[in-house]
Amino acid sequence: MNEKYKKEFVTYFNGEIVPDSEVKVHYSDSSMALGYSVVDCARTFSHRPFKLRDHIERFYLSMKAVRIDPGMSPDEMERITLAVLEANIPRIEPEMDVWLNQQISGGKNLRAIGGFEFADPALIISSPPLTLPDYAHLYDTGVHAVTPSIRHIPPQTLDSKIKHKSRLFMCMGEFEVKAVDPEAFSLFMDLKGNLTENKGANFFIFSNGILQTPKTDNALDGISRATMLELANKLDIPTSEKDIQPFHVINAEEAFFCSTSYCILPITRFNSFTVGSGKPGPVFQRLIQAWSERVHTDIIAQAKGRVADKVS
Amino acid sequence: MNEKYKKEFVTYFNGEIVPDSEVKVHYSDSSMALGYSVVDCARTFSHRPFKLRDHIERFYLSMKAVRIDPGMSPDEMERITLAVLEANIPRIEPEMDVWLNQQISGGKNLRAIGGFEFADPALIISSPPLTLPDYAHLYDTGVHAVTPSIRHIPPQTLDSKIKHKSRLFMCMGEFEVKAVDPEAFSLFMDLKGNLTENKGANFFIFSNGILQTPKTDNALDGISRATMLELANKLDIPTSEKDIQPFHVINAEEAFFCSTSYCILPITRFNSFTVGSGKPGPVFQRLIQAWSERVHTDIIAQAKGRVADKVS
Amino acid sequence: MNEKYKKEFVTYFNGEIVPDSEVKVHYSDSSMALGYSVVDCARTFSHRPFKLRDHIERFYLSMKAVRIDPGMSPDEMERITLAVLEANIPRIEPEMDVWLNQQISGGKNLRAIGGFEFADPALIISSPPLTLPDYAHLYDTGVHAVTPSIRHIPPQTLDSKIKHKSRLFMCMGEFEVKAVDPEAFSLFMDLKGNLTENKGANFFIFSNGILQTPKTDNALDGISRATMLELANKLDIPTSEKDIQPFHVINAEEAFFCSTSYCILPITRFNSFTVGSGKPGPVFQRLIQAWSERVHTDIIAQAKGRVADKVS
Amino acid sequence: MNEKYKKEFVTYFNGEIVPDSEVKVHYSDSSMALGYSVVDCARTFSHRPFKLRDHIERFYLSMKAVRIDPGMSPDEMERITLAVLEANIPRIEPEMDVWLNQQISGGKNLRAIGGFEFADPALIISSPPLTLPDYAHLYDTGVHAVTPSIRHIPPQTLDSKIKHKSRLFMCMGEFEVKAVDPEAFSLFMDLKGNLTENKGANFFIFSNGILQTPKTDNALDGISRATMLELANKLDIPTSEKDIQPFHVINAEEAFFCSTSYCILPITRFNSFTVGSGKPGPVFQRLIQAWSERVHTDIIAQAKGRVADKVS
Amino acid sequence: MNEKYKKEFVTYFNGEIVPDSEVKVHYSDSSMALGYSVVDCARTFSHRPFKLRDHIERFYLSMKAVRIDPGMSPDEMERITLAVLEANIPRIEPEMDVWLNQQISGGKNLRAIGGFEFADPALIISSPPLTLPDYAHLYDTGVHAVTPSIRHIPPQTLDSKIKHKSRLFMCMGEFEVKAVDPEAFSLFMDLKGNLTENKGANFFIFSNGILQTPKTDNALDGISRATMLELANKLDIPTSEKDIQPFHVINAEEAFFCSTSYCILPITRFNSFTVGSGKPGPVFQRLIQAWSERVHTDIIAQAKGRVADKVS
Amino acid sequence: MNEKYKKEFVTYFNGEIVPDSEVKVHYSDSSMALGYSVVDCARTFSHRPFKLRDHIERFYLSMKAVRIDPGMSPDEMERITLAVLEANIPRIEPEMDVWLNQQISGGKNLRAIGGFEFADPALIISSPPLTLPDYAHLYDTGVHAVTPSIRHIPPQTLDSKIKHKSRLFMCMGEFEVKAVDPEAFSLFMDLKGNLTENKGANFFIFSNGILQTPKTDNALDGISRATMLELANKLDIPTSEKDIQPFHVINAEEAFFCSTSYCILPITRFNSFTVGSGKPGPVFQRLIQAWSERVHTDIIAQAKGRVADKVS
Repeated sequence: MNEKYKKEFVTYFNGEIVPDSEVKVHYSDSSMALGYSVVDCARTFSHRPFKLRDHIERFYLSMKAVRIDPGMSPDEMERITLAVLEANIPRIEPEMDVWLNQQISGGKNLRAIGGFEFADPALIISSPPLTLPDYAHLYDTGVHAVTPSIRHIPPQTLDSKIKHKSRLFMCMGEFEVKAVDPEAFSLFMDLKGNLTENKGANFFIFSNGILQTPKTDNALDGISRATMLELANKLDIPTSEKDIQPFHVINAEEAFFCSTSYCILPITRFNSFTVGSGKPGPVFQRLIQAWSERVHTDIIAQAKGRVADKVS
Repeated sequence: MNEKYKKEFVTYFNGEIVPDSEVKVHYSDSSMALGYSVVDCARTFSHRPFKLRDHIERFYLSMKAVRIDPGMSPDEMERITLAVLEANIPRIEPEMDVWLNQQISGGKNLRAIGGFEFADPALIISSPPLTLPDYAHLYDTGVHAVTPSIRHIPPQTLDSKIKHKSRLFMCMGEFEVKAVDPEAFSLFMDLKGNLTENKGANFFIFSNGILQTPKTDNALDGISRATMLELANKLDIPTSEKDIQPFHVINAEEAFFCSTSYCILPITRFNSFTVGSGKPGPVFQRLIQAWSERVHTDIIAQAKGRVADKVS
Repeated sequence: MNEKYKKEFVTYFNGEIVPDSEVKVHYSDSSMALGYSVVDCARTFSHRPFKLRDHIERFYLSMKAVRIDPGMSPDEMERITLAVLEANIPRIEPEMDVWLNQQISGGKNLRAIGGFEFADPALIISSPPLTLPDYAHLYDTGVHAVTPSIRHIPPQTLDSKIKHKSRLFMCMGEFEVKAVDPEAFSLFMDLKGNLTENKGANFFIFSNGILQTPKTDNALDGISRATMLELANKLDIPTSEKDIQPFHVINAEEAFFCSTSYCILPITRFNSFTVGSGKPGPVFQRLIQAWSERVHTDIIAQAKGRVADKVS
Repeated sequence: MNEKYKKEFVTYFNGEIVPDSEVKVHYSDSSMALGYSVVDCARTFSHRPFKLRDHIERFYLSMKAVRIDPGMSPDEMERITLAVLEANIPRIEPEMDVWLNQQISGGKNLRAIGGFEFADPALIISSPPLTLPDYAHLYDTGVHAVTPSIRHIPPQTLDSKIKHKSRLFMCMGEFEVKAVDPEAFSLFMDLKGNLTENKGANFFIFSNGILQTPKTDNALDGISRATMLELANKLDIPTSEKDIQPFHVINAEEAFFCSTSYCILPITRFNSFTVGSGKPGPVFQRLIQAWSERVHTDIIAQAKGRVADKVS
Repeated sequence: MNEKYKKEFVTYFNGEIVPDSEVKVHYSDSSMALGYSVVDCARTFSHRPFKLRDHIERFYLSMKAVRIDPGMSPDEMERITLAVLEANIPRIEPEMDVWLNQQISGGKNLRAIGGFEFADPALIISSPPLTLPDYAHLYDTGVHAVTPSIRHIPPQTLDSKIKHKSRLFMCMGEFEVKAVDPEAFSLFMDLKGNLTENKGANFFIFSNGILQTPKTDNALDGISRATMLELANKLDIPTSEKDIQPFHVINAEEAFFCSTSYCILPITRFNSFTVGSGKPGPVFQRLIQAWSERVHTDIIAQAKGRVADKVS
Repeated sequence: MNEKYKKEFVTYFNGEIVPDSEVKVHYSDSSMALGYSVVDCARTFSHRPFKLRDHIERFYLSMKAVRIDPGMSPDEMERITLAVLEANIPRIEPEMDVWLNQQISGGKNLRAIGGFEFADPALIISSPPLTLPDYAHLYDTGVHAVTPSIRHIPPQTLDSKIKHKSRLFMCMGEFEVKAVDPEAFSLFMDLKGNLTENKGANFFIFSNGILQTPKTDNALDGISRATMLELANKLDIPTSEKDIQPFHVINAEEAFFCSTSYCILPITRFNSFTVGSGKPGPVFQRLIQAWSERVHTDIIAQAKGRVADKVS
């Protein structure tokens, strides 16, 4: 992440808005000691929040599922998020956009051995800049999706519909796929052999005229995923939620990842197979175009513009 | 944890020894952002380290398995740990003992979306006091072990032989068992229905004259577990590693948890069944006695002494 | 069960209608020796049978699946059931209702070791009184549904669409959940971590405007479940059959059990999480109202009236 | 079973010794209503009990595991069993032997819907005659063991180390194997594909000079199984407990079932493969000989003698 | 197969059309050495190809999934297939029809140990006669479908949507079901206990007015399966893809296999249960009639006619 | 494979010894049509067969397990194998060695659709030259073992103790690992996450002073594996068969593949982790030395010598 920008930004931390670099947590906090923390991440387009309320509501679903009480209402959470954004607006360059992140820990365990009673959750609301140049070229080349030998965590251990931060297994999978291709993105299989999701993105294929995505048994019920389905609906592209296996991707016409930051990236290779034509396809073009229109921002141009800036 | 003491202790943090309360990590560190961190925990008995080298060597196994390079040798790690202990000795009351903990994060991800390249791992070496009074009474009453409906993480997702901090699923299981009995300890089943381990302890039964413990397929290869096997060997108690199922515990003569802090606690109830006589049994007495002798410290008396202090 | 009433009732037993207390089976019958028996249970509303034919037809499905031949047609079975009801009518208090149960065993194994040839199935058709007061208060408080650590029997071992009586594993799960809360109802997970059913009831959630229930892969294809779907359809509530995981219940607006006896009970707590508002919700009110209208009986009032009677 | 003899025998039933034909249980008892019952089965050799105490102790393990309290001590249980045997001795023909069975139900559920509180367990202690002729010829021909497509119940649903009577799934498997061969015996696979046990017997192979039997993860910890291991030990035949797969049986030198009644039967065919020579082998001969010596009864001759009687 | 006819037929083999008996492959080819080969099979009706292009397109899907490049376009493949058919037309008796098969191997491994680089795939395009008489009687009697104890290969090992020739496990299952009934057809369960497909056919049930077939998670996405769904649609029979378990077949009204050669065969027995009436049912009649009309060939009459020829 | 030599060699094929290039099989043979074939592979050292009888006996185990009858005794099979070797001796260069392979197919299916009756198995006994230079350098560099995302076939589908040729899934895994590193060797995980074997080799680790190898639940019971255990025994290296997981390999001191051709190759990298020192270790040196002594052939020198020849 670009440290220069980040240092100048401010962040909400347990009741105060402070310089981001001061948001530090003692190592005994359960976020560090146990991976006990949840998060949500919205973003702005042209400095306007996109689906912020949806993200905050999902943040409350995640918090309830892990038994964390933030001590404030969703309205209050939204109000603070917007205040952080407003405070940072002067620091955001015109063509740049930012994340709108909420994260909270379980706090500290008051009772050491055996007991289990937490207090003082650490709540952080931040709006760091999006690092658009990092992925701008992938709109053209597409992504290489690779399935690691590591399997996604089963829901009877931890439900991936919780947007949690206990993701060491995903880091290990990510290292595996980088050994195949340093630019590859992970695409995890579940224990049954169905494809699920990337470390930070949902997954889609377009095949036989239908936009298809895995059910959320082993995947985040993503807000970008929901946006994909809405846009497809508007474009009269039929959609379905179903079990997707490697065979389906190998023989799909197109495939995609979607996430808050980059919205949609085409998948043009899968486990070293060429997907479709091997280039971003027409369904990708229609979807990213529709998304751009919806947010009044040319998503790809914005990302590439930032590359140009950096080069000059 | 007792904040009064803790604040006075010092801790090693990325090259310096500083007051423990100053050991704070920015929220973008991968330990908070991804649960990407590993740990090891030894302790002192009568202010002398116990099996410190074994713990440090296991710490290096965990680090290798998650691809973290601490940038120093095990000798150096041991030297720093002893330096932290020495610095804190004046702060440790005579009848008290301390943890000897090493923990490290993956550091920060230098490349935001898609990329995966980490730098600046956060290394923390600390010796906080053991909160002996919290569990002193359990040497007499025994523990109620309860299996949550949540299953242990399978090794093809994340190997529990890595002493990691991505433990949200374990917190969720712990909450489940506390609903059965606020003093209960979790005992996780794996996906096949075998018992594995507690959130922070290995598990044993004594049955048909044999001290038995699960294989480490789904459990930490614990150093306290190894001590148990060594002590049993010395006491001529036969041991075996095998799959243990709830039926075995229900009908065992005795059962135990073992961990660095409390060494051994008897399990006297399991899923609301009485185990054996329902009281700490003779094998427990022999093992804790042998452990006490080995460390030249009356483990139970020490724990109970602290309770007395607190009360007065 | 209320012994006073029951003794007075009559029951069909292998060709005769006899006092219920005389319906006793030798311990060598396969129902006792092997759990080899199936059952079905309808009930009356205001003394009129409800969906009796549907229950009898399902009884024939269960019998076929376990290779028991009752030696009579469904028509004959229905006729006898009605005759038992008629015989008991004078014994049923006006505000009371009864079960209409058919059960049959595999009979006796004619060949002892190795052989497998059964004869003389024991057929019992009874109409014991419904013990309405036992659950009347739950229409107001709602039920606490709890998932035991025990998993539902997989269909490749025994299909739960067969309404069988080989339910020891369910008893064991029920004991586990009573340890959490003596009033809790079991809600079993299958081996994959999906929720299935209660020991004697199907399970529903209402979420995102849709009434949802697990597929019948690991659950009875319940006739009350079918009634729920019919009533929802009539009330223009969309429905779907899908995999439901704990996360979905924790964040549902409402949840329910449905069964022949109590029709619908609201679930207001799940694994100690509050479900929705923690009180019976509007969808419950609409469904129980519609069911009451369909059977010309105020279901809740009837149950509560019996409580009053008992008290006075 | 031979009704003529059986009617004459007496049986203990809830405190009294009565003619066996009077031991009948109301259909509301949980043994019939829920398959909630456990059992144990010893036998006599030449009218002397064999390992009766071991069986009674295992009966207490089973009862504890399913939370049934018989209200008497093992000594009392043994005393009653011997009293039943003694009462029946005059009815037992000299060359005949009997079972020594204990079985108990969970009793009646005192609270109907939702509640779970049992009382009045039905305890039955009986000594019916062994139907030796039914299997006498199998000592010569050997048994055809067949694996049904139905899988054994997993231990996280119900532990097969409990000798329970909730065995409908086993009946269904038995019907499947009888379709292959009316004389075939079932041999169940577990969900992982390992062989486990027969409906009423443990399973062994002899291969590479070692007598091998599955671990008890998915099988009864049989007392006949223990006898096999003891006899092998005495005969200097090495033994091991290990995962056994169909390949191992197909290529074994010999294979066996063992159970209380017939002690050992050779398996000479497996899934229509010939096992070893296709005839009872030398290890079978040595084991059955050693068993006969141990119980001072020629096991095979006794069985065949009864056949002769029947024919004449 | 009828050798007399077959010898006279010609077949395409790596660039040439040669007498079929000359199409022989060296044993070092990966089709023999590793089971590394894929196939597709169309047929003619009244000497006209049926859905040939669909089969060829699926052949290209299979080839891509196993990384075989045939070195020609689908158009060229189709052209050659038609040329083979044309060459054989004079050899085909008027009332007879033929297969239209493409198969290809991975070729030879150029690098022996460790390396993996293939060349010279063996491509064979043939049109052998259909052996109609072999199954003509099954249109009247129906088929006995039997589930072996062997489970279908899971998709995370090998995807059954690839029409491959690495089918030893299926042969083993087929032998198991022939032991039950020499005329039985295999119907494989997957590891979860759902029914999947026959060795060479897809599987359907008709139940509750709906034509149902397993999803293709563990089954070929069959072209005959697609034809079934198209015909049902034309006949206004609702269809669905869902998990089907043995209980569903036992209680279905009708059941079917469908494949390229015989189109549809009724299943009248399943694991020795009678399915429906035990005779080919009305839905079978409607579907086979519609299929016959679509291909301008009386499918059953043609098969039976061949029987007559053979007899005379 | 070296075509020049191979063409000159002779091979036994269904009763005759013929030039190897003439050993061709019609594509309708079940080895090509169904992957229905088994194999075994011994080799010579200095032109002398090694453990030939063990290989032939295992070949008979494999044949029995897949129901193929070769129509000859093991003695006859051995005699033919030696005759083939003898015939080829003049063609083998002095410093070269050869395979001694037996393979057989199921033959042809006599009945086309539904039926299953095979005849005319194709038996091939060959002694092609070992391509030693292909792997000579790996004795120095060691091998990079990589786990593909594809899982090994479960034993309830097909037992890997059968040395079969239905290995398409293994080819697919091999392609996956070559994408990580073109010189990598596959190391398959089973469905539970344990490591099993390579496409053509068994797998060992040396850790904590013990030579460890997976049980044969999901792996060939290899004759080279047996040799490893024998040599270790002779060298006083303790051995054990146990579940091995990636963590164990990452932290092992050494690791190995063993197979008929190369005997032992050190594994120096695993999933891009360095194993031990990253170089062939002392246990490898002792084992390969002991093996060389046993076969009176310097295994590594022989392999390297061939490289020299090729270069000159």
